[in-house]
Amino acid sequence: MENPFTHEYFMKKALQEAEVAFEQGEIPVGAIIVVENRVIARTHNLTELLNDVTAHAEMQAITSAANFIGGKYLKGCTLYVTLEPCQMCAGALYWSQISKIVFGARDDQRGFMSMGTKLHPKTEVVSGVLAQEAADLMLRFFASKRK
Amino acid sequence: MENPFTHEYFMKKALQEAEVAFEQGEIPVGAIIVVENRVIARTHNLTELLNDVTAHAEMQAITSAANFIGGKYLKGCTLYVTLEPCQMCAGALYWSQISKIVFGARDDQRGFMSMGTKLHPKTEVVSGVLAQEAADLMLRFFASKRK
Repeated sequence: MENPFTHEYFMKKALQEAEVAFEQGEIPVGAIIVVENRVIARTHNLTELLNDVTAHAEMQAITSAANFIGGKYLKGCTLYVTLEPCQMCAGALYWSQISKIVFGARDDQRGFMSMGTKLHPKTEVVSGVLAQEAADLMLRFFASKRK
Repeated sequence: MENPFTHEYFMKKALQEAEVAFEQGEIPVGAIIVVENRVIARTHNLTELLNDVTAHAEMQAITSAANFIGGKYLKGCTLYVTLEPCQMCAGALYWSQISKIVFGARDDQRGFMSMGTKLHPKTEVVSGVLAQEAADLMLRFFASKRK
């Protein structure tokens, strides 16, 4: 039997969160955190609602997962996020020592890769999972804002 | 009459917050945010209490100040923080577009300067204000932990 728990499987859940953000007028980024194929955090960007630049999907996912685990380190966890994390979120992920980061679309302007933010040496990165879907959602969002 | 509202005046308040963190077993970092000589946020590191790597003093100061202002951008605001901000906090400060960052002690290992994190182009940085006091507090904390 094929393993149903693929990166695409979990990224679809992150995309569902991004859709919720979109509907609420937030820049549509969604994130989930998974440990042993179990989703322990499910969040989306809330910067507009909370009037808070720190309320990115990833930040809330880290806080939520740590709360679930009862400890602040996310070893053994995988973050799925629809957009490449920014400096702030990558910096938070550095502190969390998370095992894996899987992201969808690249963010060449503000993403941690072009900005040069350092992750924890033990953190593995996978990029480009359902990237087109995530990028399309962002484009659709900004197009709707320009109307 | 001399202006009483010097960088040292406000950094002393941030150091008081760091002392509170110390007493609570937190890595002793304190922060305040000031607008027109008025303190609008006063926070300290809470990563142990909250079991959350994102609970640095600066992150909470940003959230708290935005809440006070009722908007997410901190233009016209100055952050005073006892230790050089890390990548995460510098990344959050980038998004906040804060006008000025005044910090005490350098953090050559994990500070944003050596890590290469980018601030908003309009953000001014002042370093070394009561640096010795902030560094002494950190040294005293880690010495007490080794006992």
